[in-house]
Amino acid sequence: MQVTGGVAVDRWLINGRAGDSVPVDDRGLAYGDGLFETIAVRDGSCRFLDLHLDRLESGCKRLGIPLPSRTLLQAELRELIGAEVHGTVKIIVTRGTGPRGYQPPEDCAPLRALGLASSRPAKLAPARLRYCDTPLGRNPSLAGLKTLNRLEQVLARAEWDDPEVSEGLMLNDRQEVICGTRNNVFYTLADTLCTPRRDDGGVHGIMRAQVLRLAQEQGIPTSQRPTTRADLAAADDIFLTNALTGAWPVAELAGRSYGRSRVTEAVRAGLVKLGVGECAE
Amino acid sequence: MQVTGGVAVDRWLINGRAGDSVPVDDRGLAYGDGLFETIAVRDGSCRFLDLHLDRLESGCKRLGIPLPSRTLLQAELRELIGAEVHGTVKIIVTRGTGPRGYQPPEDCAPLRALGLASSRPAKLAPARLRYCDTPLGRNPSLAGLKTLNRLEQVLARAEWDDPEVSEGLMLNDRQEVICGTRNNVFYTLADTLCTPRRDDGGVHGIMRAQVLRLAQEQGIPTSQRPTTRADLAAADDIFLTNALTGAWPVAELAGRSYGRSRVTEAVRAGLVKLGVGECAE
Repeated sequence: MQVTGGVAVDRWLINGRAGDSVPVDDRGLAYGDGLFETIAVRDGSCRFLDLHLDRLESGCKRLGIPLPSRTLLQAELRELIGAEVHGTVKIIVTRGTGPRGYQPPEDCAPLRALGLASSRPAKLAPARLRYCDTPLGRNPSLAGLKTLNRLEQVLARAEWDDPEVSEGLMLNDRQEVICGTRNNVFYTLADTLCTPRRDDGGVHGIMRAQVLRLAQEQGIPTSQRPTTRADLAAADDIFLTNALTGAWPVAELAGRSYGRSRVTEAVRAGLVKLGVGECAE
Repeated sequence: MQVTGGVAVDRWLINGRAGDSVPVDDRGLAYGDGLFETIAVRDGSCRFLDLHLDRLESGCKRLGIPLPSRTLLQAELRELIGAEVHGTVKIIVTRGTGPRGYQPPEDCAPLRALGLASSRPAKLAPARLRYCDTPLGRNPSLAGLKTLNRLEQVLARAEWDDPEVSEGLMLNDRQEVICGTRNNVFYTLADTLCTPRRDDGGVHGIMRAQVLRLAQEQGIPTSQRPTTRADLAAADDIFLTNALTGAWPVAELAGRSYGRSRVTEAVRAGLVKLGVGECAE
């Protein structure tokens, strides 16, 4: 049960009203001055909603964007989802409209756009990965945030159109692997569950945090560390995480095949208990 | 005669029609998947229009966005400007709407939004600069492009609200000065006109290119080079360039005062002859 990418959004609530457009002078369009969340809807509810709203709140604070009320967002999400059972919700929050110029307006009225795609979960085969040539810039001021500045990911994803390739891994200029274009990456080395650190790039993934927490609860050693191609070549196994797919096993990267380690199986079983049905066999 | 920042856009042509909104699922909003140009309107015409359209064209090619027809853009700009004498035109080009997911759609219909602000040119005092704390990430895949990914500039510009500070300079993680939040920077060292290189950050400025060309024509040595705070502290003078202000002399940076060198005066005189009246005394 996993949701495939590339689904069109069926309906939007924009500042609380059904709609399909935003002002052309919104700073989200002009500068990418905002954030977004992508949330799995399972059995009619937003999975890990509190964690997504926590991240949105913390991102708004870092960018200095006044936070939309959590109660309001929750009510609008309920209205948006209605009787839908499975799907994907996207929340976009921007600093709103403003005059030309980078300076944030003193009194800004943030824009919130909530979109729902009523996609059905689908079964995904183990992932086949490639390395992308597009480097991921190191931006300590934006690291960890899910901002609307995503051109590097777009260029990286445009590098291949082979449908057999599931995802591409992105490296920074130090040749550290940071993440996939839309997934975080984990790997097992010497019975330790490892994942690239989040110092100056990548996103603080919701599923990534769940995986780290689960591993720690189960007594599995974890390490957030600089990660090289050699680390991944030496790993017992690799999996990808994102909010829609849980922990997605990797079958192949750079000519090597991977199985699944005991560590990964334990983490996946833990995720199933948390409602991530995509990890059930 | 210089245009101040922060002016509201008065009217827009969106895909050729008067309007004030764009689709909420436009990839410009979702990912910053697009480019923009800011152009000075002087005496009813877009200054250096061919150079702006050249840059837009080259940026679209690098991002793989189908190029809007130059003839169409020129006609729409004439319609937008109408009888306006002075002002600022903004052109936004995005990859258009698409389903969720970074992968560029195979058949994309780019969006073009042309906005006009009928601001009157205003006299600007010599600039007082600061250094920004927000680092500029190094992104070789985007360097030189005027993309819609501008959050770093927004965060840098949000660092001060003292109206006496005209602009902030941004450095990368190597402590190289790259640019201001909305200007390129030039300085004179040992009778050489220097400016930070454009290898992995900053924008290929239209006015920057004019200044380099003019200097070369006048036999002034130029150097595009890694630039440190020490270089600027040792410089004879500093000026800023952008499409709206020409070459803007700097009065102060980091506690030091600056005058104007012979080199800068020669460049400014050359710009006046090219129609950059803002550089006339």
